[in-house]
Amino acid sequence: MTMRVSLLHGPNLDLLGKRNPAIYGTQTLDELVAEVVSYGDSQGLEVVPFQSNEEGALVEAIHEAGRTCQAVVINPGGFSHTSVAIRDALEAIGLPVYEVHLSNIHAREGFRRKSITAEASTACLSGMGTQGYLSALDGIVKGVS
Amino acid sequence: MTMRVSLLHGPNLDLLGKRNPAIYGTQTLDELVAEVVSYGDSQGLEVVPFQSNEEGALVEAIHEAGRTCQAVVINPGGFSHTSVAIRDALEAIGLPVYEVHLSNIHAREGFRRKSITAEASTACLSGMGTQGYLSALDGIVKGVS
Amino acid sequence: MTMRVSLLHGPNLDLLGKRNPAIYGTQTLDELVAEVVSYGDSQGLEVVPFQSNEEGALVEAIHEAGRTCQAVVINPGGFSHTSVAIRDALEAIGLPVYEVHLSNIHAREGFRRKSITAEASTACLSGMGTQGYLSALDGIVKGVS
Amino acid sequence: MTMRVSLLHGPNLDLLGKRNPAIYGTQTLDELVAEVVSYGDSQGLEVVPFQSNEEGALVEAIHEAGRTCQAVVINPGGFSHTSVAIRDALEAIGLPVYEVHLSNIHAREGFRRKSITAEASTACLSGMGTQGYLSALDGIVKGVS
Amino acid sequence: MTMRVSLLHGPNLDLLGKRNPAIYGTQTLDELVAEVVSYGDSQGLEVVPFQSNEEGALVEAIHEAGRTCQAVVINPGGFSHTSVAIRDALEAIGLPVYEVHLSNIHAREGFRRKSITAEASTACLSGMGTQGYLSALDGIVKGVS
Amino acid sequence: MTMRVSLLHGPNLDLLGKRNPAIYGTQTLDELVAEVVSYGDSQGLEVVPFQSNEEGALVEAIHEAGRTCQAVVINPGGFSHTSVAIRDALEAIGLPVYEVHLSNIHAREGFRRKSITAEASTACLSGMGTQGYLSALDGIVKGVS
Amino acid sequence: MTMRVSLLHGPNLDLLGKRNPAIYGTQTLDELVAEVVSYGDSQGLEVVPFQSNEEGALVEAIHEAGRTCQAVVINPGGFSHTSVAIRDALEAIGLPVYEVHLSNIHAREGFRRKSITAEASTACLSGMGTQGYLSALDGIVKGVS
Amino acid sequence: MTMRVSLLHGPNLDLLGKRNPAIYGTQTLDELVAEVVSYGDSQGLEVVPFQSNEEGALVEAIHEAGRTCQAVVINPGGFSHTSVAIRDALEAIGLPVYEVHLSNIHAREGFRRKSITAEASTACLSGMGTQGYLSALDGIVKGVS
Amino acid sequence: MTMRVSLLHGPNLDLLGKRNPAIYGTQTLDELVAEVVSYGDSQGLEVVPFQSNEEGALVEAIHEAGRTCQAVVINPGGFSHTSVAIRDALEAIGLPVYEVHLSNIHAREGFRRKSITAEASTACLSGMGTQGYLSALDGIVKGVS
Amino acid sequence: MTMRVSLLHGPNLDLLGKRNPAIYGTQTLDELVAEVVSYGDSQGLEVVPFQSNEEGALVEAIHEAGRTCQAVVINPGGFSHTSVAIRDALEAIGLPVYEVHLSNIHAREGFRRKSITAEASTACLSGMGTQGYLSALDGIVKGVS
Amino acid sequence: MTMRVSLLHGPNLDLLGKRNPAIYGTQTLDELVAEVVSYGDSQGLEVVPFQSNEEGALVEAIHEAGRTCQAVVINPGGFSHTSVAIRDALEAIGLPVYEVHLSNIHAREGFRRKSITAEASTACLSGMGTQGYLSALDGIVKGVS
Amino acid sequence: MTMRVSLLHGPNLDLLGKRNPAIYGTQTLDELVAEVVSYGDSQGLEVVPFQSNEEGALVEAIHEAGRTCQAVVINPGGFSHTSVAIRDALEAIGLPVYEVHLSNIHAREGFRRKSITAEASTACLSGMGTQGYLSALDGIVKGVS
Repeated sequence: MTMRVSLLHGPNLDLLGKRNPAIYGTQTLDELVAEVVSYGDSQGLEVVPFQSNEEGALVEAIHEAGRTCQAVVINPGGFSHTSVAIRDALEAIGLPVYEVHLSNIHAREGFRRKSITAEASTACLSGMGTQGYLSALDGIVKGVS
Repeated sequence: MTMRVSLLHGPNLDLLGKRNPAIYGTQTLDELVAEVVSYGDSQGLEVVPFQSNEEGALVEAIHEAGRTCQAVVINPGGFSHTSVAIRDALEAIGLPVYEVHLSNIHAREGFRRKSITAEASTACLSGMGTQGYLSALDGIVKGVS
Repeated sequence: MTMRVSLLHGPNLDLLGKRNPAIYGTQTLDELVAEVVSYGDSQGLEVVPFQSNEEGALVEAIHEAGRTCQAVVINPGGFSHTSVAIRDALEAIGLPVYEVHLSNIHAREGFRRKSITAEASTACLSGMGTQGYLSALDGIVKGVS
Repeated sequence: MTMRVSLLHGPNLDLLGKRNPAIYGTQTLDELVAEVVSYGDSQGLEVVPFQSNEEGALVEAIHEAGRTCQAVVINPGGFSHTSVAIRDALEAIGLPVYEVHLSNIHAREGFRRKSITAEASTACLSGMGTQGYLSALDGIVKGVS
Repeated sequence: MTMRVSLLHGPNLDLLGKRNPAIYGTQTLDELVAEVVSYGDSQGLEVVPFQSNEEGALVEAIHEAGRTCQAVVINPGGFSHTSVAIRDALEAIGLPVYEVHLSNIHAREGFRRKSITAEASTACLSGMGTQGYLSALDGIVKGVS
Repeated sequence: MTMRVSLLHGPNLDLLGKRNPAIYGTQTLDELVAEVVSYGDSQGLEVVPFQSNEEGALVEAIHEAGRTCQAVVINPGGFSHTSVAIRDALEAIGLPVYEVHLSNIHAREGFRRKSITAEASTACLSGMGTQGYLSALDGIVKGVS
Repeated sequence: MTMRVSLLHGPNLDLLGKRNPAIYGTQTLDELVAEVVSYGDSQGLEVVPFQSNEEGALVEAIHEAGRTCQAVVINPGGFSHTSVAIRDALEAIGLPVYEVHLSNIHAREGFRRKSITAEASTACLSGMGTQGYLSALDGIVKGVS
Repeated sequence: MTMRVSLLHGPNLDLLGKRNPAIYGTQTLDELVAEVVSYGDSQGLEVVPFQSNEEGALVEAIHEAGRTCQAVVINPGGFSHTSVAIRDALEAIGLPVYEVHLSNIHAREGFRRKSITAEASTACLSGMGTQGYLSALDGIVKGVS
Repeated sequence: MTMRVSLLHGPNLDLLGKRNPAIYGTQTLDELVAEVVSYGDSQGLEVVPFQSNEEGALVEAIHEAGRTCQAVVINPGGFSHTSVAIRDALEAIGLPVYEVHLSNIHAREGFRRKSITAEASTACLSGMGTQGYLSALDGIVKGVS
Repeated sequence: MTMRVSLLHGPNLDLLGKRNPAIYGTQTLDELVAEVVSYGDSQGLEVVPFQSNEEGALVEAIHEAGRTCQAVVINPGGFSHTSVAIRDALEAIGLPVYEVHLSNIHAREGFRRKSITAEASTACLSGMGTQGYLSALDGIVKGVS
Repeated sequence: MTMRVSLLHGPNLDLLGKRNPAIYGTQTLDELVAEVVSYGDSQGLEVVPFQSNEEGALVEAIHEAGRTCQAVVINPGGFSHTSVAIRDALEAIGLPVYEVHLSNIHAREGFRRKSITAEASTACLSGMGTQGYLSALDGIVKGVS
Repeated sequence: MTMRVSLLHGPNLDLLGKRNPAIYGTQTLDELVAEVVSYGDSQGLEVVPFQSNEEGALVEAIHEAGRTCQAVVINPGGFSHTSVAIRDALEAIGLPVYEVHLSNIHAREGFRRKSITAEASTACLSGMGTQGYLSALDGIVKGVS
């Protein structure tokens, strides 16, 4: 049976590739998602993408994943550092959760080094760019947790 | 030309698989390293392993990597949280550095959530077990940094 | 005249009784709300329930309560610890506010011991399970503030 | 069989209703206790009251409760914020403990927002005035813990 | 060509003038916005107003401003102190941003003295009431940044 | 009757425009003051300028303003972050006080984000350059406080 | 009518003059109290002395003072730094309270520089030895508060 | 001449062996004291036991020890972390003081890792159970200080 | 021989009695000083008054006192909380120093509870109003230090 | 069968008795070790001593102990306060660990009061000098853990 | 061309050699300055000395140095730890700045270990006594920065 | 007799001049050491150089210096901020110790501003480059301590 994976993106990640390409690169979120979905397909995973700038919409998407998916890959953006609600949602659904950050959060401003949501995750990958998502899918396939 | 990757392990990781298998799993460090070397070989990477319980020996291995390798994969163990010397060595050599932790450091004791060495790394992967090392090699092959 | 009471639930509380019954019990939010509404009815209170995973929707529900109700009973979930917006909304409407938590927040993780929203509440009851809501209604009937 | 409940008050609560009625109200501790005992009686609970300004006397009253009662309702007054000894006593006896504060401690001076004793309690009710004690008895009757 | 300015208001500001006039004054948000729009018109600026109690809606309004406006005037309300997402959105669009607060945040409760969003702003005006918005428009006209 | 406004500048602001024009711009303090005085004149305000590098001289100038002026506009420079004496002086005279900073203090080094003197001010404008002073005068004319 | 003043001493002060005269001097507590009583007599004050090593006994002595005296002079010893209960008692009785310390608490170990009880006092005199008590009586006579 | 040693126990230690044997063991305080007294006897030491849940009673017992004993062995229980009064008493009497904890305080909750009273002790033994008391007596016999 | 005492006042104390009599009382600094000088005269002390709003002028007045006086009475005003320079000056001259505050600094805003200068004083009296100065002179006469 | 005990000393302890006898006493490490070995022998314990100034060498000695001994006595010297690696090694081997310090670490500089390594120990004895080691052996013999 | 060096001393350094020779040595500031000027002369540097107890006077002396000198040697005394104004002045002038302290600030009280002014200096020498000034001149001659 | 000086370098300093010349300059450690040795020779000092990346090797080199040298010049590199062991070794040998840093540690990242090892040094010179070592030798020759 194909495994379903929820792919979640938080606030401002819809701007990827659209503004400040010098900083954020030129790959848009659509292109990034397409690459992840395609790689998932090659690994026998159905990747279900969703992006929102709203904390509540992400909480509900996590609940939905808890009902319909077997794993979550999430880049919570700025909510990583502030959202107890997303943290609690991730904990509640009891699935493997892979948190991904495009840049290395350990090397950025002090307030970005603490991820509240990663406390409720299985694994955290930061600083690998798009490859981080593909590696997260590898982890899911291998059944890491 | 084959790319050389230095694979470094810090203190206590030589105990992997030898004690407390319920906690640390049954894979020994030798087996883990063999798996990583083999995967690297399949990806066209020569992986050069080294483990030490001594901070200074790791600093020197990092220097050596700076002279003879094109990337570093390091699991600094307990030195992640205390060693400015290793942090400075990683910064000095100017190579891509992938920090790997077997467990998710964001979900452990407070003092393990802060990685000093990750401040000087390209990427940080924690919580993926052995797969984290393979994903780090993937990142290196893709030229992520 | 019947007194109207707004009954508000924050993020993840819609999962009550649906997942992890060992932890969260088997009573669903619908059942809990029905019990509170029924008890309110017996005390001459019209209880108006609302749940949302969105901070903004809760802020607006509080505003609505300010226009149409005489008291608020709120379990803000994870927003207790992060939302200045909900705190300000509670303060602005000037009604009696009873904050309820199913578990005792003083005995949980450090970050759950501080409730920002309780600073703007009349009373705070934690650790009493569903009974906490009924006691809050008792307080409202007695005109405590 | 009637359930016995220890009702404990800490320092300065003997002054209730005797000084500064504008701040503390006009109900004396004797009147408050009488109301709680009477309500307990109506609920089939024998409420055994005790007040002391001494930390040690309260520790011993808690031990006594551990031997002779089935639950504790305690307003530790200023000891909430300073007494590890009372906290340890509450933890040691292993009974349901309801901590009650007349005012909402979350909305007072910073040093009153942290309750050391509530860490060892089943539930905490603050800001409900005398009604808080009655609600605590309700919780005991319902067997909440 | 007329310059377009996005005028954003965060949570609870829709209550202005509707409740507690002793505290918040009697001017409603509609009246305040009308005054700002009118003044902008007199200065050759098209002011586009928007209010929301939802963090995500404000993030998207900021994105929209990045596509259609040349400057932003924002009163983030309680989100000033908690929202990394709004901070990141303001930074991403690369426009001049004027943060405005009706009261002087430096003279209020401790948690209101730190503005996360102001870190990503060009300027911050607090304590000037409605005049603060007009002054922000003056700054935009003068091309301050 | 013409309203008199004291315009105060603190330490190092006498260097404006004289050193490091790349950082501080090319406008000298004399030119800045002339622009503010002239704008005040156009608004019916007599602006009385004073600059000092000495904390005590500024305290006395504030006292003088308390006796002879109806409002204060002050850029305290580095004293914003260290001077309780200036803070107390501003509070004592009981006039409207507008604190102005040329750059946005919320976006600078950590120690510059806290303004002790702004705690005793009516309003604080930072990041607007010279325009901040003109906006402060506008506030005074409108009688904001 | 003679004014009555409660003179309270906290823990370990009964050792004065009995041990370590090099540190604590040779005057015993009895001698110190006699000197204070005698000076009070000369100023028309009836000084009522009490010493206890028990927090609760001091709380009750403060309550007693609230019923029978017009002022309190207290050297709380080590309880200055730890007792919220004594602080609350002093606040509750609403009398002038003079806190006295034989040595200058501002120049001792860090934990002695914060006096919780002094927050609820009219005045605090430290470092004057026995003279501090006499000065406190002077303040009471002069009606300072 | 026989050396006299004061053996002091603080709050809640009277519960040893009476409740929660799974946690606290089955040895009662009386049995523990008997073992310590007996061992002392075998080493030529007269051990004088005392237990109290009251801070003041312990302070006075320490004073008494200062007058009649040559050393103190104390398990202050929860007072270790809160009592400046006991700390000062231990310091005042100038005897060798051995602080003993049954469990290893360095491995417990954060607030138990700091012992205020141990600052005024000669030695601190934690984690050795009853043997810790016997070792303390050995230290006294050897004249360690 | 008459003993000379330097009486020093820091910033803003020249405003005493001139502004806000509701807060600061109606006694001017001149009147306060006259009362202190007169009382000193009656006790055989020559009191030499000086006030300045400048830190440096106070440092030099302290040096002068070191050369020509036998004791110092100082109300450092806002410099109490910020001036290491005054602290060092007081320490350097090696005279008895009595720090006086009109109000009780322990009961004011947090930043006023720590006096840097009192660390280098013999004694500190706060909350006694003008009487505090007279008591300081009493201390000097009695040779307290 | 004889029980083997690893006796480990950390950095600078090789200097014992060789320098500054006024501070460190005149007993050398060799003499101290001989005394401990001899006492162990009398108790049926084979004590295996090792000293190193290198963190890594100590980590490996702990591993060795895990393979060949039944208990560890360790004085980690300065590594107590900084070494997560030693802490992890002690935890990994799963033996009883007795941490010993010659002086009372609770009464020394602030940074010495926190022992990271003691978090992973069975017991901690500080301030007993050489006797602390003998008491640790007693604990091992008694099977305390 | 001769290089000019501004030699600045802050508060209380005018007391050098005049009081407490046991602590501060017997060399006066005049003698120290003469030694530095003479050594500068031998190295082809014109040293221009200035001392003040006033923060503002030092700020202006730094500005003057910015106009007339090529380097600064400064011992800011107590202002090192409190003066943002001096820090900003040093940064503004853009010259090499050598901060000198007679004693080793890293080994003194906690509040002296942080130098605000050294953040804006080229180099910091502490603990070398008068020789520190001579070494600073050596650094200037060598063109170190 | 020639005075011997131990010249110690800590981790990563062996990379000087070999990597990143833009940052670290082009002088190698060998060249730097040669310059220092040569200068020492000219001043009648025998300079004995040693570099290690191992904390333990440096501790032992300090011990060796204690036996064979009369002074120490040390650049501890990253160990400055983490090593209690090196700090204790420096303190134990009782020689004059000059700590040298090539760059100004007060102007770098926050974690580099605190030097643990400098607490046990005679003097600290930072920011002077190679000249800092020569100045340290000057200090030794002058007998500064």
